[in-house]
Amino acid sequence: MALPPLSSTRCLLPLSLGLFQAALLLFFALCVTYDEHSASPTNPEDAERAAKQLHSTFPFFQDIQVMLVVGLGMLLAFLPRYGLSALTHNFLLLNVSAQWALVLQGLLHRLQHGKALLGLRSMLSAEFAAVTVLISAGAVLGRTSPCQLLAMALCEVPVYVASEWLIVTRLGVLDVGGTITIHIFACYFGLGVSKVLFGNEKPKVHPKETPTPRSDLLALLGALILWVFWPSFVAVLCQPGDTQHRAILHTLLALSGSAITTVLISILLESDGKLSAAHLQNGSLAGGVAIGVVADMHIPPAAALALGSLSSLLCILGFQFLTPLLAKKLALQDHCGIHNLHGLPGVLGAVASIVAALVAPGDGSDTGGHRQAWWQAAGLAVALGGSLLAGMLVGAALRLPCLAPPPEPLCFEDALYFKLKEWVENPPVPGSSTEGAPLAMKECV
Amino acid sequence: MALPPLSSTRCLLPLSLGLFQAALLLFFALCVTYDEHSASPTNPEDAERAAKQLHSTFPFFQDIQVMLVVGLGMLLAFLPRYGLSALTHNFLLLNVSAQWALVLQGLLHRLQHGKALLGLRSMLSAEFAAVTVLISAGAVLGRTSPCQLLAMALCEVPVYVASEWLIVTRLGVLDVGGTITIHIFACYFGLGVSKVLFGNEKPKVHPKETPTPRSDLLALLGALILWVFWPSFVAVLCQPGDTQHRAILHTLLALSGSAITTVLISILLESDGKLSAAHLQNGSLAGGVAIGVVADMHIPPAAALALGSLSSLLCILGFQFLTPLLAKKLALQDHCGIHNLHGLPGVLGAVASIVAALVAPGDGSDTGGHRQAWWQAAGLAVALGGSLLAGMLVGAALRLPCLAPPPEPLCFEDALYFKLKEWVENPPVPGSSTEGAPLAMKECV
Amino acid sequence: MALPPLSSTRCLLPLSLGLFQAALLLFFALCVTYDEHSASPTNPEDAERAAKQLHSTFPFFQDIQVMLVVGLGMLLAFLPRYGLSALTHNFLLLNVSAQWALVLQGLLHRLQHGKALLGLRSMLSAEFAAVTVLISAGAVLGRTSPCQLLAMALCEVPVYVASEWLIVTRLGVLDVGGTITIHIFACYFGLGVSKVLFGNEKPKVHPKETPTPRSDLLALLGALILWVFWPSFVAVLCQPGDTQHRAILHTLLALSGSAITTVLISILLESDGKLSAAHLQNGSLAGGVAIGVVADMHIPPAAALALGSLSSLLCILGFQFLTPLLAKKLALQDHCGIHNLHGLPGVLGAVASIVAALVAPGDGSDTGGHRQAWWQAAGLAVALGGSLLAGMLVGAALRLPCLAPPPEPLCFEDALYFKLKEWVENPPVPGSSTEGAPLAMKECV
Repeated sequence: MALPPLSSTRCLLPLSLGLFQAALLLFFALCVTYDEHSASPTNPEDAERAAKQLHSTFPFFQDIQVMLVVGLGMLLAFLPRYGLSALTHNFLLLNVSAQWALVLQGLLHRLQHGKALLGLRSMLSAEFAAVTVLISAGAVLGRTSPCQLLAMALCEVPVYVASEWLIVTRLGVLDVGGTITIHIFACYFGLGVSKVLFGNEKPKVHPKETPTPRSDLLALLGALILWVFWPSFVAVLCQPGDTQHRAILHTLLALSGSAITTVLISILLESDGKLSAAHLQNGSLAGGVAIGVVADMHIPPAAALALGSLSSLLCILGFQFLTPLLAKKLALQDHCGIHNLHGLPGVLGAVASIVAALVAPGDGSDTGGHRQAWWQAAGLAVALGGSLLAGMLVGAALRLPCLAPPPEPLCFEDALYFKLKEWVENPPVPGSSTEGAPLAMKECV
Repeated sequence: MALPPLSSTRCLLPLSLGLFQAALLLFFALCVTYDEHSASPTNPEDAERAAKQLHSTFPFFQDIQVMLVVGLGMLLAFLPRYGLSALTHNFLLLNVSAQWALVLQGLLHRLQHGKALLGLRSMLSAEFAAVTVLISAGAVLGRTSPCQLLAMALCEVPVYVASEWLIVTRLGVLDVGGTITIHIFACYFGLGVSKVLFGNEKPKVHPKETPTPRSDLLALLGALILWVFWPSFVAVLCQPGDTQHRAILHTLLALSGSAITTVLISILLESDGKLSAAHLQNGSLAGGVAIGVVADMHIPPAAALALGSLSSLLCILGFQFLTPLLAKKLALQDHCGIHNLHGLPGVLGAVASIVAALVAPGDGSDTGGHRQAWWQAAGLAVALGGSLLAGMLVGAALRLPCLAPPPEPLCFEDALYFKLKEWVENPPVPGSSTEGAPLAMKECV
Repeated sequence: MALPPLSSTRCLLPLSLGLFQAALLLFFALCVTYDEHSASPTNPEDAERAAKQLHSTFPFFQDIQVMLVVGLGMLLAFLPRYGLSALTHNFLLLNVSAQWALVLQGLLHRLQHGKALLGLRSMLSAEFAAVTVLISAGAVLGRTSPCQLLAMALCEVPVYVASEWLIVTRLGVLDVGGTITIHIFACYFGLGVSKVLFGNEKPKVHPKETPTPRSDLLALLGALILWVFWPSFVAVLCQPGDTQHRAILHTLLALSGSAITTVLISILLESDGKLSAAHLQNGSLAGGVAIGVVADMHIPPAAALALGSLSSLLCILGFQFLTPLLAKKLALQDHCGIHNLHGLPGVLGAVASIVAALVAPGDGSDTGGHRQAWWQAAGLAVALGGSLLAGMLVGAALRLPCLAPPPEPLCFEDALYFKLKEWVENPPVPGSSTEGAPLAMKECV
């Protein structure tokens, strides 16, 4: 199939990546120093403290890397002809966004404390910033070019850094697992982008969007990888000790509740009592999204379990009823259903955190809990409203034709971005063209 | 293909899952409190101890989660048209069984110590209980409905909790890696279920049971994931320090011996000197099963290596000769060959633990070792006999028609449980029906 | 397809594996004792030190196991009809080489310190030795029999042990991540083997060598797994504390630079602005290879980033220009492009370590840095020259006909080594042979 020469991609993408990498190199060379823990490396006690801190963070960090690079990548590969692109775009966005966040957070830290420090902790914060880009990209995946996605990343990261600073540092919102600052923010940012970018054209299901059993299996494996490592994502920034222990337990309970409820609800809703793979891939993770904001609070175990169940119920109802409704009424496109996985469970979690703050035993006076409840609500409002607005602005910018949106028939198609070698069996085997092709095919893994 | 309306699945499965989840919520709300390590969270020493305990357990816990959710799921996906179902049933059974075990073990603990504590350790014990269900399910996979599997899980977990309490707490059997309490128990329970459930109909190889190169590759990847993380499974409950170190080394040596011996034996046995993928997928793990019961004992490294080699030899001989024999003589169905992977190597490991107890240097008197050897033998007998009996009873219960066993032609078939969207290329491309289908296919990932 | 009876494989492979395993058992039984940390296990302080050392190494060890068994295996499965063989040969070679290295390193340690100790650290060193074999095998993968690969492993490990001892222990070369001792050594060893083994026949692209989108996706997933865990590989042997922290950060930065630069360069070089999957699979890892030798040095963060970018540039240029040139001029076959992933970035890293030693602040006198720079250069020369020479000798030995090289039409073909069950749909469905095959196919996962 002859493709149009992607001159714009060809020039713009390497150029912008090159400029970006060069600018970052400059920044690193000028401003960054290491975040060394030990005042004097020869002092054995300091060295031991540094070692302990590293060994208590690094396994969590690796778990999160697996989630973002492997698990999320495989989950996005549910598009049967877009697996390579989904995996690669996810990988590229992660790296660009994390480096960009490292710079911005470094600058912010420099403004506040005089220098930009580099350490596993700052890497982790940068990674969290990158997660928002990966989530938002889910709303427009397959219908956007890498240039558009990169432009989105460059815009989204500063907004996230500002929003996170406002919500956590200024408002004092408690959100250890990023439910508000990451999931809600990223979801509504992505929906804002999608709405303005695609305008009012009614979304049609693209024939290449339909998953095959094979791509569904791969995506389910990706979801299970995310499911397994989710507790690390929620608990990595917790105070070591009982708080972190509790956050892990809450997340495990919520995810377990989600898993069971997802199967239950999916069977109930589907017309002939069968499971939907998409429900499984998303519903089982919904509890992890919701629990983040209350994971380190003193909530009863039953509440964690119930929150997990409830959020997967919400997630599947969203897929079944809200997504078609939004598509029909608002012409809103949300290819991976991020509103169902990140938006609805995120809002549920935020509401749960308000309730938890209200009923918390507190420190004698009731005012502490009430005030915290207000802050949680304010954080939710800021994250939701701010991101939606910012996303719509960015969506308008992504309409620039120089960003080379893919032509409709080539959406969801690896061949647009990847040099796929022609298959060997393509030329019909002489003499037996009818049987030759299937025979050749079946032997390929 | 028109499927019969699975009214029974449709009603029974969500109903039972819903009741189950509601009952558990109630139990958690009423009976469970957190297992907090630090007497006072403000005491820095207590907090540090809690942090240390968490960081020494959590990486092991995550490894085990990867094994059960991802590794085992992929291994079961060797059935080419049953991948989604295998992965999902495994995932659902894990969650239901673990929650159920959490309740039962909590109640048991409550009887003994006054309250049910929730912590990463109790989660781990519950996970171990769930493993038995996952293993047993391997005997009947593909020919059972989710309702049947759930009913089996609900029955098996209490039996496991009782059996584990009897074997480890009462008899004092040493079994750090669960060879006797988990692998042998689960294997003979599953075989008991299979025998009574399927009765005397001679097992025929179902056409959909045959793996394809692609599904074999996926299953091999799953086996390798299990292989990599097996040392964590065996060593997680060991005393930290040298004992745990030794358990890890023994497991690594046994697994390495298994890997090499598997290739050796498989080539020798197969008619034309080729490898069998099934041998590889199972034989390389056999050493991990056998070593569990002696992993923390003072055995020489050479013994670990030899045990690994021997157990994979036994495993492959089982596949080649015993499975066909049992199928012919006893009409015993064992779809995943759990008797070869868990039964035979498990018994070998148990025998090795008897020998190890007999030759152990001991504490001066010979009686300690001899007595321990008797206990190990008693544990083996209890696990084997008790589970076989219990399994047969449960198998009889699973014959209830309301549990909706799948009709024979739809066994091993994802389409029975999953809403698989019709493929786009199904309607023949107008004009070129002959070439159209393969062309469309080859581009799908 | 009727295959020739592989009598030689059938006899030689099991025989040699059996002899090997028996000899190792003997060695373990006679010479190996455990490397116990605690002088007295009842001393709580000793026990705690042992526990701490274990918990600070084991997560790294597991990460590396995932890389070698799962990640590398999947990366090698880019050959669409050779996935099972690639995965299995990789797995077998890893186990044989690691056991063999355990013996040789044990003997060496015994010569020097009186006894061969077994511990997680010695396992790790043995695993590193095995990595060289896995890398070298990449040059000849698909055109060599398992017998040939095993013979290569048996020859390569002793050479590696000697070379590593010479370079690190005698010359004092700093190489914490194995850039010189592992990557450069393994690469030129493999190229030496390939050159002499295949002689002067001009390499032709075998039709089965071409990856399909599906096998490319699997290989990309493998590369991403390697990418995620690479920091563990580089940093595992570092001094805990700030040094290890720095090594991890440097590796993360280098890998991130590689990821972005790979996309940039691949788009620039490919004729129509599209990405090449092979570039992605290799280029994103190049930074990890190069950074190893300087990871624990006091280099600025910007240098790590730049080194990562530069090495992936080199890697892709190698694929694009050098590999075809070497194939044309020297008739050199390098099936996985190990020269581009391990050779070129390795040499770049070695040169960087020379520069780093020259500009290092040092201890007052300039001579320390200059001397170290010389040692680094000497290490590079020894690794490169020695391995090339040794590889060519081994390549000559591999020409022995009894090692059963695969016949050309069956290269890159799983069916040569695996008993692949015939597919069910092979016999044409009666009546509708034209439509039957694709219909049956599309339902298989």
